[in-house]
Amino acid sequence: MKQFAVIGCGRFGGSVAKSLYKSGFDVLALDDDECVIRNIADEVTHAATIDIDDAIALKEVGIRNMDVVIIGIGSDLKASVMSTLLVKEMGVPYVVAKAQDEMHAKVLTKIGADRVIFPERDMGIRLAYNLTSTNILDFIELSPDYSILEIVSPKIWHDKSLMENNIRSRFGLSILAIKREEEINVSPQAEEIIRSKDVLIVVGSNEDLRKVQEHE
Amino acid sequence: MKQFAVIGCGRFGGSVAKSLYKSGFDVLALDDDECVIRNIADEVTHAATIDIDDAIALKEVGIRNMDVVIIGIGSDLKASVMSTLLVKEMGVPYVVAKAQDEMHAKVLTKIGADRVIFPERDMGIRLAYNLTSTNILDFIELSPDYSILEIVSPKIWHDKSLMENNIRSRFGLSILAIKREEEINVSPQAEEIIRSKDVLIVVGSNEDLRKVQEHE
Ligand SMILES: Nc1ncnc2c1ncn2[C@@H]1O[C@H](COP(=O)(O)OP(=O)(O)OP(=O)(O)O)[C@@H](O)[C@H]1O
Ligand SMILES: Nc1ncnc2c1ncn2[C@@H]1O[C@H](COP(=O)(O)OP(=O)(O)OP(=O)(O)O)[C@@H](O)[C@H]1O
Ligand SMILES: [Ca+2]
Ligand SMILES: [Ca+2]
Ligand SMILES: [Ca+2]
Ligand SMILES: [Ca+2]
Repeated sequence: MKQFAVIGCGRFGGSVAKSLYKSGFDVLALDDDECVIRNIADEVTHAATIDIDDAIALKEVGIRNMDVVIIGIGSDLKASVMSTLLVKEMGVPYVVAKAQDEMHAKVLTKIGADRVIFPERDMGIRLAYNLTSTNILDFIELSPDYSILEIVSPKIWHDKSLMENNIRSRFGLSILAIKREEEINVSPQAEEIIRSKDVLIVVGSNEDLRKVQEHE
Repeated sequence: MKQFAVIGCGRFGGSVAKSLYKSGFDVLALDDDECVIRNIADEVTHAATIDIDDAIALKEVGIRNMDVVIIGIGSDLKASVMSTLLVKEMGVPYVVAKAQDEMHAKVLTKIGADRVIFPERDMGIRLAYNLTSTNILDFIELSPDYSILEIVSPKIWHDKSLMENNIRSRFGLSILAIKREEEINVSPQAEEIIRSKDVLIVVGSNEDLRKVQEHE
């Protein structure tokens, strides 16, 4: 079983730690704020107050035995960079570090971070996408110009079958699945009628996907 | 065209503002930090330094004309709550507010926020999911126990057709699409051969999806 540690258990790091633990993994949670550690202690395997500047404490707590370490420190750039460096030096094979901006990300990569992430930026992009297209529930970007969308079925398609709607030739889209209440119909037949409130899983080019939303 | 304003342009709010502007919408960016405003000014329609405690300034800047306001203020609970309240009082139809935790979220909902979001928490959950299942590239949660996954094709399926792999009856899963380099094959035929490096779009119960990853 993989061993995880999270250094810096703020909103992001804390959520990573608790989710990993919930999925059944061993998680060591570290933070220099006693309050944070007290709050998370019951939701991880082990939690300890530690300042990342203290390299000896970091050794004692067993960081070298971890398979994956997530650095969740945000605003304190020095602490973020220092901890990434120390943890890589201790031989941890996979280190994920959170960056504030592109410059910070560059530094983290240079000193050995195996993956750099921008949780706030990425979530901001997702929200913007979601706000400007009210019927999109979720999406997977397959390529820069091809996506899978989870959408509320547009009015113009209601009470007609897939065939009558002629979705593939008129809209260039394929319906992969239809979700109706808790039932999921995978690869629906041409005779299947689309109802209001149906949720459709649709694949197509971003351009064609945008067009169908305008019809909403 | 919808009018957007973002109050509190930190990493999250700033990303929302810039993404909306990039998509062609009018975006007003507000923050009490002059530095933040200087940095974002070129990437939005209009940017202004404003303290949310100043209700008059908020009126003058035209908040009442907005269709959607996003409150991106994080740590300053009082400012987050105050701005949500003021903006709703001014009659803005849709206000999205960022919460620190469940208690904060409750308050925001009570005072009229139309949607409350937890960007750091949600991104933490996504990262945890992603770290514990290395071949998952993305996913859409269809219901609490049904998902669509984008996965790197597992070794055990390589160089055999969908039919030979007998994926539906042996694994309980359906392959919705196969991505090979930049080509996307929607609703692949039974004779289609799965190759290494293929990316598969798979739908099934979370339990069945977990099983196939163990085979990886
Ligand atoms: N030197 C350090 N050693 C250990 N933990 C630290 C150190 N510096 C900061 N932290 C912890 O890291 C966590 C995240 O830091 P901070 O709140 O600055 O970042 P953030 O990006 O705003 O976080 P989030 O958005 O995830 O809440 C906090 O719980 C903080 O106590
Ligand atoms: N009273 C206020 N009026 C206007 N803007 C404010 C106010 N208080 C804070 N802000 C701005 O809100 C932005 C986000 O606040 P803060 O950094 O505390 O939250 P955060 O959750 O750590 O943000 P993020 O993780 O998105 O970077 C900052 O740019 C800050 O200047
Ligand atoms: Ca912060
Ligand atoms: Ca995605
Ligand atoms: Ca944050
Ligand atoms: Ca999702």
